[in-house]
Amino acid sequence: MHIICCDLEGVWVPEVWINVAKITGIDSLRLTTRDIKDYDELMNYRLKILKEHNLKLKDIQDVIATLKPLDGAKEVINWIKSVSRLIVVSDTFVEFADPLMRQLDYPTLFCHSLEVDEDNNIIGYRLRQKDPKRQVVKALKSMNYEVIAFGDSYNDVTMLEEADKAFLYKPPQNVIDDYPQFPVATNYDEMKEQLLSMMQ
Amino acid sequence: MHIICCDLEGVWVPEVWINVAKITGIDSLRLTTRDIKDYDELMNYRLKILKEHNLKLKDIQDVIATLKPLDGAKEVINWIKSVSRLIVVSDTFVEFADPLMRQLDYPTLFCHSLEVDEDNNIIGYRLRQKDPKRQVVKALKSMNYEVIAFGDSYNDVTMLEEADKAFLYKPPQNVIDDYPQFPVATNYDEMKEQLLSMMQ
Repeated sequence: MHIICCDLEGVWVPEVWINVAKITGIDSLRLTTRDIKDYDELMNYRLKILKEHNLKLKDIQDVIATLKPLDGAKEVINWIKSVSRLIVVSDTFVEFADPLMRQLDYPTLFCHSLEVDEDNNIIGYRLRQKDPKRQVVKALKSMNYEVIAFGDSYNDVTMLEEADKAFLYKPPQNVIDDYPQFPVATNYDEMKEQLLSMMQ
Repeated sequence: MHIICCDLEGVWVPEVWINVAKITGIDSLRLTTRDIKDYDELMNYRLKILKEHNLKLKDIQDVIATLKPLDGAKEVINWIKSVSRLIVVSDTFVEFADPLMRQLDYPTLFCHSLEVDEDNNIIGYRLRQKDPKRQVVKALKSMNYEVIAFGDSYNDVTMLEEADKAFLYKPPQNVIDDYPQFPVATNYDEMKEQLLSMMQ
């Protein structure tokens, strides 16, 4: 029996931080791991910016709630759930993902979590574990599932490598160039084709 | 972060084989592990009965599709998905569960599968792994989740024992007597109370 593991942002929903930066007008929130390579440093920088602007968790959730899942995402997710099992694996935080997951009828999401104080200030974050995307695939394989994985970016590669079958979904050109071993799907129809052929 | 693991039949949906027996009028399908202790023997006996009555997978699925989830199941499942993560763990077969899971918007289900030939005859079955309920909890713990589990019967006990926190849901008296260490919930309101206190 197979199970599908996939990324969240860029696959089913828009990139969260970029859109939070856009809507709040706080340009410094646009920085990504391309600008600050160390994730811990980047996250602490983001939390500092939120604090400086006196933005609480609720404020960010309200911004995120104005975002919509990508066109067709909900239908494709429902299709996958009807033909296999789906686990969404993300490096986001459950508190940020929540307003978007609600619009997708809450597919199962494995991700990180925030530390929030009693005044709703975000005071830190908890990564679930090291190399979390690979660990999810390993755990599913320990249950004798054949794992099919897809994602769009560098942080998905360990998940794709650990999976039994994998492809890239709408990756930027540099990811395609660096990982030519993975087939590429560029829209939901091609995603479904890849899944159907890999589920055989 | 916590994750909820629970049983399917008796918790969210009615007992499948008993109802298939009732609707088809084939009394011999009522036998359970109480009558034939060895699960493999019981399943092979059931498959023999289906064959004798010339019942194909589609016929059984049509019968199962006339069943409804238990009253309130969908609402409680949606509530759990909105406050935590939910994995339904069952000793049923994905092909039998499907008509019921559809009515519950397909929560993530880990279970077994059938072998079906090209004429839609059920010719065998594949158990996903040995001690599957315990293995699911172990796999989720390997991802650093705190596992909260509940179920109604003997085949749930390894899952409940392996979980970080656990309770029995609507168990028969003999299960309560044999496992007095587990708290008991007898309806969905009590289930939600148990979950809320264990999610703290």
